[in-house]
Amino acid sequence: MSRKLDLQDIDDMARGAAILGCGGGGDPYIGALMTKQAIAEGRPVTLVDIDEVPNTAQVVVTLGIGAPPVLIEKIASREQPELALRHLERHIGRKAEYLIAVEVGGLNALSPLMLAAATGLPVIDGDGMGRCFPKLEMTTFNISNVPATPLAVVNERQDFVLLKTESDAICEHYIRYLSIGMGGFMTGAGWAQSGAEMKRACVPGTLSISLKLGQVVRQARERKENVFTALLAGLRETEYYNHAHIIFEGRISDVSRRITGRHSVGVARVERAGEVLELVVQNEFLVARKNGKTACIVPDLITVLDEDSGEPITAELLRYGQRVRVLATSVAPIMRSEAALAVWGPHAFGLDEPFVPIEQLVLQG
Amino acid sequence: MSRKLDLQDIDDMARGAAILGCGGGGDPYIGALMTKQAIAEGRPVTLVDIDEVPNTAQVVVTLGIGAPPVLIEKIASREQPELALRHLERHIGRKAEYLIAVEVGGLNALSPLMLAAATGLPVIDGDGMGRCFPKLEMTTFNISNVPATPLAVVNERQDFVLLKTESDAICEHYIRYLSIGMGGFMTGAGWAQSGAEMKRACVPGTLSISLKLGQVVRQARERKENVFTALLAGLRETEYYNHAHIIFEGRISDVSRRITGRHSVGVARVERAGEVLELVVQNEFLVARKNGKTACIVPDLITVLDEDSGEPITAELLRYGQRVRVLATSVAPIMRSEAALAVWGPHAFGLDEPFVPIEQLVLQG
Repeated sequence: MSRKLDLQDIDDMARGAAILGCGGGGDPYIGALMTKQAIAEGRPVTLVDIDEVPNTAQVVVTLGIGAPPVLIEKIASREQPELALRHLERHIGRKAEYLIAVEVGGLNALSPLMLAAATGLPVIDGDGMGRCFPKLEMTTFNISNVPATPLAVVNERQDFVLLKTESDAICEHYIRYLSIGMGGFMTGAGWAQSGAEMKRACVPGTLSISLKLGQVVRQARERKENVFTALLAGLRETEYYNHAHIIFEGRISDVSRRITGRHSVGVARVERAGEVLELVVQNEFLVARKNGKTACIVPDLITVLDEDSGEPITAELLRYGQRVRVLATSVAPIMRSEAALAVWGPHAFGLDEPFVPIEQLVLQG
Repeated sequence: MSRKLDLQDIDDMARGAAILGCGGGGDPYIGALMTKQAIAEGRPVTLVDIDEVPNTAQVVVTLGIGAPPVLIEKIASREQPELALRHLERHIGRKAEYLIAVEVGGLNALSPLMLAAATGLPVIDGDGMGRCFPKLEMTTFNISNVPATPLAVVNERQDFVLLKTESDAICEHYIRYLSIGMGGFMTGAGWAQSGAEMKRACVPGTLSISLKLGQVVRQARERKENVFTALLAGLRETEYYNHAHIIFEGRISDVSRRITGRHSVGVARVERAGEVLELVVQNEFLVARKNGKTACIVPDLITVLDEDSGEPITAELLRYGQRVRVLATSVAPIMRSEAALAVWGPHAFGLDEPFVPIEQLVLQG
């Protein structure tokens, strides 16, 4: 069922997407600011269910590409997304009819909304990850044979690059080098696909789930109820994110990070009463180790939430001394298939351990 | 006057272009091999004077992009140039009617010939440098406001990238990063321009001059005449390259080089009887310093020739112990204008000295 989104919805969706975004996907505050500005200056945004999209419709992904910390210092220009879209349309010789997100995160879940406000195109309720991942090939589109390229990329200078590569992994490889040259943060348009392909390939419903989770947190806060209890209940009502657990509470005692090409990599430590949770970061939180033992691992979701407000904290905004709770959540079954784990399981990130679902890890806990 | 080129012409032109190529532009042996193969499998190649090209014709540059040493180990695939051309044509919405070289060098002067053999398109007798330079913005096209982008780039995997940038210098900046990712050597198609623009912007006649110089060296060798005397006489008969001098003879005593992104940089030393000539390299020879004093400087031409055969030696093929003569030659006046020197004079290469024409340096002795 299609619905128009209002400004309150944008704040809620940004918060909810950041919860699902595993610390990646860009700062939800910046994402919400940019989207509300785009809607104020443009048109209202319509969210549509995947079933409402005709099979023959032209669907296009719009996204931000780069190391999230760059965006804190350098906001994207308003023209970038539409320019990238127009370049892609010119190359494929067809106009986009629907927009879809590549991932659910504070900024990238909202990227289609910003472009929708500028163009009037409807946004599909779904995405290509059901969370965030740091690499272009890590999408359900890819494992369903919907390639990222031709991918049009524009930076804040409005310089334009179009890539068409043998595989998404190779595109990612080139983008990593290009990103350094192009200033660290670009806007892209790609994954051109039919409505039928989108229905087969996407993780459906993730934007409305984000909206719902964001509302749950805000309303619990307004009603002075326990935010974490409300959030866990909200997650457990969803189809995919139904195994949800707070795996640690404590204070950030150490954060190290550096930007390598287009990624932000590092380690954060949370401590409490002699216990420690280590979080390994590559744009997103990849693995949480409690006293050296794996407590949650990619592709399951690891989210760091502010102790007082329940607000999700992205990896680049982690600071020494923050009091946090760490949330671990299951992902959609499509994200845990053998084909899926080959592309974004622990081994794909160089981690020498198998994927174990959070529902099992909690039992072993 | 248009003429068909035969296989002997290709060897001669490759040699002559390498003489004008200042040590850059790729190995003439590989260039000639690839071109002869393309002609054997394709069609004969026609060279046309700039005056024969209609003002409204669509002219396109085809070129190799990357660090020349890479090409010694990894030859380009035969499909690359035509793929890049087709991608460019698709983007500009118009078919190419004439091809032109970006620079005169052992490989890049011949790039249009290879593509001409595959496509049947005529090749214009001229180029955009009248020598070789290491950067995309260093063309007479650029100083005549004919931009390099949209620039289509293809590597040996047939991965494709199209760039459109604010300036040629920015394109060069991105290409440098991209080149690392794409394997160090790519084929490009760009500088789409009209016949009228080409006539205003190019250095005319440089391919036929290359052919002539290559013939002069070969014929002198066949007749057991002095190759260097013949070559100097041949250069002095040309319109631009008429100030030509052997500035040093000796043995290569030291060569250092490294590849930084898409460039090969280094220093070579030639010694004889206590005297030394130092050659500073960035793909091409930039400056020759005799006993510490500038003997020839960019954009004038510095060429290293084998003592026995008179064959030009590209910078990447310099070896310890080679006996060589070093030739210094004037460039076309269009290459020495104030606007030109701002883009490729000594300062553009970080050299802290002014350009002094070879005809003056020789007088200062």
